[in-house]
Amino acid sequence: MAHTLHVDLGERSYPIYIGRDLFSSPELLARHIAGRQVVLVSNDTVAPLYSSRLLAALGGFSRVTEVILPDGEQHKTLATLNHIFDRLLQEGHNRSTTLIALGGGVVGDMTGFAAACYQRGVDFIQVPTTLLSQVDSSVGGKTGVNHPLGKNMIGAFYQPQAVLIDTDTLHTLPPRELAAGLAEVLKYGLICESNFYAWLKDNMARLLAREEAALAEAIERSCAAKAAVVAADEREGGLRAILNLGHTFGHAIETHQGYGRWLHGEAVAAGMVLAARLSAARGWISAGEVEELVALLGSMKLPVEPPADMSLEDFRSLMARDKKVLDGRLRLVLLREIGAAAVVDDVTDSELESLLMTAR
Amino acid sequence: MAHTLHVDLGERSYPIYIGRDLFSSPELLARHIAGRQVVLVSNDTVAPLYSSRLLAALGGFSRVTEVILPDGEQHKTLATLNHIFDRLLQEGHNRSTTLIALGGGVVGDMTGFAAACYQRGVDFIQVPTTLLSQVDSSVGGKTGVNHPLGKNMIGAFYQPQAVLIDTDTLHTLPPRELAAGLAEVLKYGLICESNFYAWLKDNMARLLAREEAALAEAIERSCAAKAAVVAADEREGGLRAILNLGHTFGHAIETHQGYGRWLHGEAVAAGMVLAARLSAARGWISAGEVEELVALLGSMKLPVEPPADMSLEDFRSLMARDKKVLDGRLRLVLLREIGAAAVVDDVTDSELESLLMTAR
Repeated sequence: MAHTLHVDLGERSYPIYIGRDLFSSPELLARHIAGRQVVLVSNDTVAPLYSSRLLAALGGFSRVTEVILPDGEQHKTLATLNHIFDRLLQEGHNRSTTLIALGGGVVGDMTGFAAACYQRGVDFIQVPTTLLSQVDSSVGGKTGVNHPLGKNMIGAFYQPQAVLIDTDTLHTLPPRELAAGLAEVLKYGLICESNFYAWLKDNMARLLAREEAALAEAIERSCAAKAAVVAADEREGGLRAILNLGHTFGHAIETHQGYGRWLHGEAVAAGMVLAARLSAARGWISAGEVEELVALLGSMKLPVEPPADMSLEDFRSLMARDKKVLDGRLRLVLLREIGAAAVVDDVTDSELESLLMTAR
Repeated sequence: MAHTLHVDLGERSYPIYIGRDLFSSPELLARHIAGRQVVLVSNDTVAPLYSSRLLAALGGFSRVTEVILPDGEQHKTLATLNHIFDRLLQEGHNRSTTLIALGGGVVGDMTGFAAACYQRGVDFIQVPTTLLSQVDSSVGGKTGVNHPLGKNMIGAFYQPQAVLIDTDTLHTLPPRELAAGLAEVLKYGLICESNFYAWLKDNMARLLAREEAALAEAIERSCAAKAAVVAADEREGGLRAILNLGHTFGHAIETHQGYGRWLHGEAVAAGMVLAARLSAARGWISAGEVEELVALLGSMKLPVEPPADMSLEDFRSLMARDKKVLDGRLRLVLLREIGAAAVVDDVTDSELESLLMTAR
């Protein structure tokens, strides 16, 4: 049985279904497909595991096309997007088609953006298969692709018809990706729910051992936290920016290392440590709380320091391109306390410098 | 002095300014630019004529970038779009930048789509310099690029902050483009305002002679007609489809001939004749009214027949890809009478066959 969460966005509202063995419930998908045409977009890692079950569930539709993308963040480009458009047009998909994203965040972001742009907008459904995409990228409507000069620089806000999270998919997830996903889960505790953060510290061993009940609870609380933030601020006018804790540093790390070397959640983990240290330097959280976070991330085998080959100047120039920069002022998400975030635009160069000197 | 029309779309409402010598009024632009960064996007035909005057009007902004695209529909592609993104990122434009489209429909569609996608959405302003873009593509928020398999297949609905129509730009417009723009003007009379159609018949000589007062009136009545239709149906759920009179045939012609050979308005002219003939075959308008339209278009030196090398099969297969096809049913805009359009989805193969036999 699936739990259902509702993301409340007026006429763009949609449900998130969370549970085991959902791929065996074709009606969950079918009720959100308005036309007779369907496109299943996946990648060459995930498709062999799950696409045949989903395709079987879609047997009743008149036109079903499968598009398999190469796996990896380095393929999240306009060129790959164009490959999706080629296939949609070659196979005669029209404005009433529905795209289904089966895979992690890269597949979800690209499929969502393809749906936003194809014939100026068609329906899509998210079926995230990694923990990261289940708790982050499948909720909130951010879609897009990378540009060589910056991550997620080209995209759209575009909401899915529904999100289907089958927790069984986590059993095939590599340990490194599980940990990267849990970094984003920790983020929700840090920015808006200290109780959840405490629960995560207590239950991290169960989560790393992939205990079903613990994973389902972590996913549901994360999605609920994100859904609440997104509902209050769909287009990132203000509040939504707190979801970017660790991300401004993280994006700089990913761009510097080349997409795909560091997993997104790994870069965010190192970025959250930097944000926590900066918060402690302002006296907002304690040094002990920072070390507790570092120890927790360490137990998850996540990086807690920026890459050794990244200089202060690298961070400065890469972060200056961040989407959150407004008229030359860098905006960063810091922690007022554990469980409460604040967006600041007054971080000085010398603060950044001493941060990056002490971070390693 | 500028006349001002308002396009009423709730929080996405915007003004259209129409008048002479508007480029000398920098405040008209500046009041719609929220940040300190501006990008002027134009093409290599229009930029030498007008960009220095607009750039002078933008002297007060902290970062002004000029992006010059190659002129022509054949460059309305994802690759050209990516060139815009390259420049925006290289020059450090952030989410508070404003893009200004100076040129015809191709520049406007691409700049609008770039604005819709850059960092998931930045502001833009339309400054259309061709009659076609002034009366059609700058009103209504359709943006996008072509795909080798179909026109405008990739895009977004995205509204500008304002539209600035300086009628002085029409004095440098080649005669063929003036006529193509007037084809779209005629369309508004045909689909929703028989009085305007009658006025156009009476004043066509003045319009072709570029009489200022006649052009301004034609532009204002066209924009008002389109704005009313778009306000009633922003995302083409129903009514808005009537704006496509002649366009389903026209797009097929453009795709078959290769983008840029036939001007859009020329293809629409031939398409409107086909739609009028189909309407007459159903007894909705008279054969005399069709011949009057053919004579009027002929006096404007516009094509009134499809290309000689296009077969029934060419039309069938190209129109099957039209965005208005819903679950296999071709939808066409016909004329119930002069001044009233209707969308039909029951045109038979034999109707199409006899239409294309008699059309030449």
